[in-house]
Amino acid sequence: MIDTTTFKYDANGLIPAVIQDDENGDVLMVGYMNAEAVRRTLESKRITFWSRSRQEYWVKGATSGFTQELQSAYYDCDRDALLFRVIQKGAACHEGYRTCFYTRIDGDGEPVITREQLVKPY
Amino acid sequence: MIDTTTFKYDANGLIPAVIQDDENGDVLMVGYMNAEAVRRTLESKRITFWSRSRQEYWVKGATSGFTQELQSAYYDCDRDALLFRVIQKGAACHEGYRTCFYTRIDGDGEPVITREQLVKPY
Repeated sequence: MIDTTTFKYDANGLIPAVIQDDENGDVLMVGYMNAEAVRRTLESKRITFWSRSRQEYWVKGATSGFTQELQSAYYDCDRDALLFRVIQKGAACHEGYRTCFYTRIDGDGEPVITREQLVKPY
Repeated sequence: MIDTTTFKYDANGLIPAVIQDDENGDVLMVGYMNAEAVRRTLESKRITFWSRSRQEYWVKGATSGFTQELQSAYYDCDRDALLFRVIQKGAACHEGYRTCFYTRIDGDGEPVITREQLVKPY
């Protein structure tokens, strides 16, 4: 496996991870990983973040069942951002939407919920 | 226009912006914006970052011609990440690739350049 410490982490030891739906290309969320979370993600094929608020590893969907199964992983030219294409079970967003980016910035500045992306409130 | 200071910026006043190709859904790059860069992006419809290394506003493609024309913009449930769908002219990556995420992390850890995404070296 690639040495995950070779990526460029910020002052807090974190790298942003873009999570993309492998089935339809939707960007589902942005989370943060440290080197160990990247290693766990690649090894387990389950997206695993470092929770900045809880200061602990966070296997996405561990409690909700809404897991993200890794299909392919990429790093960018600067090695300071990661992209993971996943099979998303259910909702990526804790608010019950398929994607966390469910609010569109409209021309007049009003947020617009793209309801077609709503899975269900839960 | 939406008040761009209402998004959640980090300690350096920045928010990550995921840039997505509106034509094929590819994630092209991740950049950083401050509130003024977000405002300029929404107003001008040209993706404008805050360059952390140069400490200046950076209209993507201003020198290369490889602009990113805004099609739609989204913010996430935590208001701490942005998503911009764009029409990408030429290459998003300064290395000449269509996307900055041209290196796949393979099963054996070796980087794999996805050459179909290469526009041209320049």
